[in-house]
Amino acid sequence: MDERADCIFCRIADGKIKSNILYQDEELLAFPDINPLAPTHILIIPRKHIASVAEMPTQDAHLIGDMAKLAKKLAGDNGIAEKGFRLVINNGPEGGQGVNHLHMHLLGGRQLGSKLG
Amino acid sequence: MDERADCIFCRIADGKIKSNILYQDEELLAFPDINPLAPTHILIIPRKHIASVAEMPTQDAHLIGDMAKLAKKLAGDNGIAEKGFRLVINNGPEGGQGVNHLHMHLLGGRQLGSKLG
Repeated sequence: MDERADCIFCRIADGKIKSNILYQDEELLAFPDINPLAPTHILIIPRKHIASVAEMPTQDAHLIGDMAKLAKKLAGDNGIAEKGFRLVINNGPEGGQGVNHLHMHLLGGRQLGSKLG
Repeated sequence: MDERADCIFCRIADGKIKSNILYQDEELLAFPDINPLAPTHILIIPRKHIASVAEMPTQDAHLIGDMAKLAKKLAGDNGIAEKGFRLVINNGPEGGQGVNHLHMHLLGGRQLGSKLG
């Protein structure tokens, strides 16, 4: 199955594409967004290839909780836990999902707007 | 402790403020945002008063996974699972958090923008 070979985030998780890995464990990975929309803009992904929330198996939902817990830690590491930050998961075309591998955006370091998209 | 009495989302969860409850169980609640930013704009909250992700106890992180699972179901109910949707959790002042009770926005029903705030 070439799913992992065809997915840029799987390739980052597998070390096939170099990235500035900010955090990793057996389940999750975090690295900077290459097109940052804010002074802090980090992507958090599961190693497992899950295309989106809409296609997430029920038994994998705990990963989203773990991603949020990691976002909290990274917000602290980046000095934005108290000032504030935003977590975003885009899903599918109208959601603006850019890569079809589940990912959470952690954005902060400036006043974020109120439109949410 | 008047924490619940002073929190508008706790008051909705406790039935003290009427809302159009779209879903509820012993843990979570979903209702429409009163200032919708998209054709579908639903808020998902835990009944438990947690101020934000930054103040979320580690043992409550699973709630965010459960909120995402519920968002997936509500996206299906609203016919936006395939077209796409966005999940947003604002945290603290620079994150644009409007109510200091953890909540996830489910937005969809139109093409969402790429700025994320």
